[in-house]
Amino acid sequence: MTTIAYLGPEGTFSEVAALSLGMPEMKLHSCVSIAEVFEAVERGKADIGVVPIENSIEGSVVATLDALVFDSSLEIQQELVLDIRFALVASPGTALADVTSVVAHPQASGQCRRWLERHLPGRPVSAANSNAEAVATAASTPGTAALGPALAAVIYDAEVLEDDVQDYAGNQTRFVVIGRGLRPRTGHDKTSLALFMKRDKPGALLMILSEFAYGDINLTKIQSRPTKRQLGDYMFFVDLEGHVDDEHVRLALDCLRLKLREVKVLGSYPVAG
Amino acid sequence: MTTIAYLGPEGTFSEVAALSLGMPEMKLHSCVSIAEVFEAVERGKADIGVVPIENSIEGSVVATLDALVFDSSLEIQQELVLDIRFALVASPGTALADVTSVVAHPQASGQCRRWLERHLPGRPVSAANSNAEAVATAASTPGTAALGPALAAVIYDAEVLEDDVQDYAGNQTRFVVIGRGLRPRTGHDKTSLALFMKRDKPGALLMILSEFAYGDINLTKIQSRPTKRQLGDYMFFVDLEGHVDDEHVRLALDCLRLKLREVKVLGSYPVAG
Repeated sequence: MTTIAYLGPEGTFSEVAALSLGMPEMKLHSCVSIAEVFEAVERGKADIGVVPIENSIEGSVVATLDALVFDSSLEIQQELVLDIRFALVASPGTALADVTSVVAHPQASGQCRRWLERHLPGRPVSAANSNAEAVATAASTPGTAALGPALAAVIYDAEVLEDDVQDYAGNQTRFVVIGRGLRPRTGHDKTSLALFMKRDKPGALLMILSEFAYGDINLTKIQSRPTKRQLGDYMFFVDLEGHVDDEHVRLALDCLRLKLREVKVLGSYPVAG
Repeated sequence: MTTIAYLGPEGTFSEVAALSLGMPEMKLHSCVSIAEVFEAVERGKADIGVVPIENSIEGSVVATLDALVFDSSLEIQQELVLDIRFALVASPGTALADVTSVVAHPQASGQCRRWLERHLPGRPVSAANSNAEAVATAASTPGTAALGPALAAVIYDAEVLEDDVQDYAGNQTRFVVIGRGLRPRTGHDKTSLALFMKRDKPGALLMILSEFAYGDINLTKIQSRPTKRQLGDYMFFVDLEGHVDDEHVRLALDCLRLKLREVKVLGSYPVAG
C-alpha cells in the first residue's frame, strides 16, 4: 500500500494527477498546502507526494521550487504532465438554461471567462478556495454551476453539463512526484538542478552553459529565481535531458561543483509521456 | 489628465501601484482582466496601463508576458516594485475577538495561513475573487474580516484591525506601466526583451549570453517560456541593464538580430527605486 500526499481537497487537479499514477494499491492523503505535502512525506505520514511545479498559463509554482531547494531533502521521483480541462458542473438534472449563478476558483474563472460570457452572460461568478470547493458548493446549491475537473463531479455527486469550457487549448500543468532517494537510470531521463553562484562572477551563467554544451547536454528549462536583483549574484533552476548517473552529465556536474557555490540535484527521473 | 487602466476592481494592489505613480491629475479606469488593460490602452480608452508582471512568491505573470510578446505593440514605460503587505480588515468598531469568519482571495489566505491559524484559529475562510471583493464583503458583514491592502479599507469604509499579517516578509510584486512608444534614455535604465530562436540551433542561448558578456551587459532576469519541450527551439525572456539607445546594447541587439528569428524589445525604462 502506497500512501500519496497531495494538494487537496479531494477533486482537485492534484488528485487527478495522483490518480493518474495508476498504482494498484494506494491511499490518498489530502493536504492544505504544498508545504504540508512535503512535511507529510518527510515525517513518514506518506510515502510520496504529488505537487504542481509549473503551469503553461500561470507559470512556475514558486512554493514547490523553494520547498525542493531550501526546505527539503526529498527528490523528484517522476514528472506528470496533465491537460487542464475544466468542466461546467452542477447538481444532477440541471440544464444549462437553469443556471443562475456560477462558483469557481478565481484562476478557473479567469481561464474560462470568454466561455462564461458567451454561454452564461450576466450570471454572477462567486469565488471558491479551490476547484473542489466550487464543485462541492454547486452540487448542493440548485441553480449554481461550478468550474472544475470532471473528476470532482464524480466525487461530489454532481453532473457534468459541459466539458472543455476553458478558453485556450493547450493549458497544461506539470506535477512532480516527490519522495526519498534517487531514481535509478532508465536511459530516458531528465534532471532538475538548482545552481547557486558565487558572488561577483558575472560570467558564471556563460560558463555553466558552456559546460552543458561541451557535454552535448540539452537544457529544457532555465529560469533565474524571480525578483532578485542581479543574475550573476544568485541562482538558477535548470532542467536537462539525462540522468546524474550518465557519464557526460556527471562530468558536467563535477566541473560545475568545482566552480559554483552549490549544485543541488532536485532529482533525476523518467521523462513524461 | 492621464487616464490609467489597471487590473481592478478598486482597492487591489494594482490600484495601489497605479496610485504610487503619483501623477498630479489622473483618472483610474478599472479593468476585469490583464487583456482588457492592454485593450483599453490600445484603443485609446486609457493613456497608460498598470499590470503585474512578476511576484516573488507566485512567480511570473504569464498573461502579461504573453500579451507584451504576442498580442500587443505597447511597450513597457516604467517598472514599479511594490511590497505586498496584507492587512486584516473589518467593518468599523470590530475587535479581533469579534471575528467569527474570514473572507479572502485564495492567494491571500495562502500567504497569511500561519497568521490566521495563530490569531484566528478555527474560523472558516471563504473565498473572494479579488482582495478588493474580500474587503467589500467584510465591510458589509459584521463579524467577518478580510485580507487585503490597507488602501481597500479606505475605499470600502472598513477599518484595519491588524497590519502586516503576511507570513513571510519580502513578498514583492513587480508591476509595469504599459503605453505607446519608447521611453528616452535616462542613463539608469533597464531593457526587457523576448528572443525567438531559430529551430535546431542548440548553441543559441550560449551565443546570446556571449554577445551580452562581450558588451559588458548585466542580465537581471532570464527565463525560458514555460512548458515548451526544448530550450533550443523556442524563446526566452531577458531583462538587462541598459537602454536600447546605449551604444553597447544596440550593438549586441544588432548582432542578435542577424542570428535569431526575432528580437522583440518589450521596453527600455528607468530602473525602479
